[in-house]
This record gives sequence, structure tokens and C-alpha cells, in this order.
Amino acid sequence: MVRQNIKIAVDAVVFGYKDRNLNVLLIKRDVAPYRNYWALPGGLVLNEESLEQAVERELREETNVTIDYLEQLYSFGEPGRDPRNRVVSVAYFALVKPEHHSIKADTDANDVAWFSVKELPELAFDHLKILRMAKDRLKNKLSYEPIGFDLLANKFLFSDLEKLYTTILEKDIDRRNFRKKILSLDILEELDEKVSEGRGRPANLFKFNQKQYAKLKKDNFLFDIK
Amino acid sequence: MVRQNIKIAVDAVVFGYKDRNLNVLLIKRDVAPYRNYWALPGGLVLNEESLEQAVERELREETNVTIDYLEQLYSFGEPGRDPRNRVVSVAYFALVKPEHHSIKADTDANDVAWFSVKELPELAFDHLKILRMAKDRLKNKLSYEPIGFDLLANKFLFSDLEKLYTTILEKDIDRRNFRKKILSLDILEELDEKVSEGRGRPANLFKFNQKQYAKLKKDNFLFDIK
Repeated sequence: MVRQNIKIAVDAVVFGYKDRNLNVLLIKRDVAPYRNYWALPGGLVLNEESLEQAVERELREETNVTIDYLEQLYSFGEPGRDPRNRVVSVAYFALVKPEHHSIKADTDANDVAWFSVKELPELAFDHLKILRMAKDRLKNKLSYEPIGFDLLANKFLFSDLEKLYTTILEKDIDRRNFRKKILSLDILEELDEKVSEGRGRPANLFKFNQKQYAKLKKDNFLFDIK
Repeated sequence: MVRQNIKIAVDAVVFGYKDRNLNVLLIKRDVAPYRNYWALPGGLVLNEESLEQAVERELREETNVTIDYLEQLYSFGEPGRDPRNRVVSVAYFALVKPEHHSIKADTDANDVAWFSVKELPELAFDHLKILRMAKDRLKNKLSYEPIGFDLLANKFLFSDLEKLYTTILEKDIDRRNFRKKILSLDILEELDEKVSEGRGRPANLFKFNQKQYAKLKKDNFLFDIK
């Protein structure tokens, strides 16, 4: 039997919500192939670490970011997706709050930056394909799990939440219905703090109630925000 | 840098609907480790084939089955999940119609059989964990995509469809509502053929209308059967 000659890597699509836009964390490659191209952070899995540990290590090394939310996305294994030799990449999907992290390039990366998903540079390998799948997953999940809260600051205006949904879902939402639905779930805590937005009157800040959400989830309720 | 010493395999959870029960296709291992244990069909990926081709080849070799529906489930990569050396397995989820296939063990398998998911033997490796995840995925998908039709014969009674849903979802459904919802989607064709079931009067056979479903899907409708 022929020896298997396939390597295994992880790549991470790290989303952040920044300047009221969905952003993705990219590194500039310092090594061939695709030297100086922007790419998803990632790299080969070490013999003794789990796939999740590999993602966390690569992110730490290449970008200085630690993750708030991580889940496996999909494995990409077409022969030929890496010009050097065959690499199967297990792609992950992560959410972070950009304001909690100062990014810094190192190891295989000579730069790191947040890019709006609407203004992407040309990406190395099949990373655009991976990114697109992650965007679809995020859109999908947003409507049946409250992962939007992992993208917002800890305290936010209701209008921030609304804006996040319209931005990521890329469509307008029925604002009155959206407000009614979200508030009826009882997963938001209205704080005794107000801030002024533009010329409008001061609005209340909200906080996500993780505990109440966990309780609802245990009872198999349907989030279902569209 | 230390040489990466990890192998990459595929495993398939093949579901069939048989004797009005959800069944899964298992092989009996003819090789160590876990010799003579039942396991999911699968094996190492060859250097030149895609992951999907590897699944199809392994199924053909070990079970003689070809697949009607295939999608990637999840990659399992914990160090230690295989006692020999480290193997990352990309698991797939497949649906077949058992009556269209005569199963036959070969290569690494010395037996192959359909098992009701309610009466499983002890499984090799972490295959029970993989199977459980596949079952959850099937349950989930059933409510938002009409994949149930990939499990039924081409012609079926409405009661067969109902029974399939209650069996896989493991709960009773509101029969009147279910019928109303499914018929309103216009994805069933009522045939001019009747069969008798037990002591009831003869009932009409139905056929799934793939074309109408594709049209609905293009318009982003929500299947949403619960």
C-alpha cells in the first residue's frame, strides 16, 4: 500500500463587528506560496494537540487574538488546494469582540488586520471559499441562536443590535416586530444607564442575559429571529 | 520542526429507513484494533482522491452500497481516538434506500448489516459519538429540508411519510397539521394508484416532486415541518 502523504491543517475565520460592519481577521503571509497575500490565520496541526488547540495556538501566534466563541465549520480536502503538497484543512468559525484585543502579527505573518467583509483583498489558496461558507453559517445561525451578542460590546443600545442584524443578514428587518420578539424572550436586561446617539434623545443601554438564555435553550425554545 | 505524524481518514454514517425504523449501516472489522467489533464503514484517504471519493470508494469496497445523498458531518481529531496512531476522521452523513442495495462485506470488513438505531451493538473507536451527532443532524435537517424523501421508496403512502417523521423525530406530530402543511407546499404528487393498508380502505400513493421543491428552494421558502 502507498504511504499516505497528506498533511492536516486548521484555518480560522474570525469575525468581529467593527465600525458597524462585519469584519474578518486576516494575516499577510510571510512565507511562500502566496507570499504577501492576505490569508486566514492557520497552520499545520502539531502531533499532540487537538484541532481546537491548534486553532487557538495559531491565532495566538499569528494575530495575538484569543477567542470568545469557536465552532468547527467544515473540512476542505480537495487535492491541489495547496500547491506544495496535499493539505486537508479543518476550518473553524470564531467570533471575537475586536475592542477587547490588540492584534499583532508574528511567526508566519508579517501583518494582521481587520477587513470589512465588503472590501476584501485577494486571498491566498481557497480562503475566499472558506470565508463565504463561514459568512453563510453566521447568517444562518444568527436567526436561530443569539450569537449576535458575542459580537456586540457587553453593553449596547437596542439600535446597535438592530443594526448588527440588518448588516449581517444583509436585509432590512421589520423593526417593530424585531423589538417585540427579542424583548418577549426576556434575554435582554435593560440597564439604568443612558447614552445619547446622534441628535436623538438618550437611549437605554442593554445587556445580554446569558443565564436566561441558557434556561430557554434547555427548554428547547426556538430563537427564530428573521 | 517535528514531522507531522497524523493520518487522515473518512467515516460514513449511512442511514436507511427499514421496517419502519431508522437504520444505520455497520461493518464488522476484520482487522485490529477492535477486531470483530461493529464499526462505521470508512478508512484512510488515498493521496489522489477527494474526501467524497474516499467515502464512496470505502462504501463500495466494504459494503457494496452506493449513495443517494451525502454531506459532510464533522471532523473528529482528538489525539488518542485511535490506539495505533493519530487519525483525524472526516465523518460524512449519507442517506440510502436499503431496498435498492444488496449489501456485501469485503476488504477490511468480514460482515455488514443494517442495525436499527434503537438496538445498536457496541461500536469501535468513537463511532458511537459520531453516530449520535449524525442522528442529531438528521433530526434537525428533517424539519427544514425535505430529506425524508431520500429515505422513502419512490412511491409511498402518506401514512409512511408521517410514520417516518414521528420515528426519526422521536415524538408524536399533530397529524392534521402535518398533512395540511406538507400538502400546501405542493411538493407531493398524488398518484392514480391505491394500495390497502391493514384493514383500512385503500389509500393513494404519493410521489415527491423534486422539481417543485427545487423551485420553492430557489425562492428561499422555509420548509419548517415540526
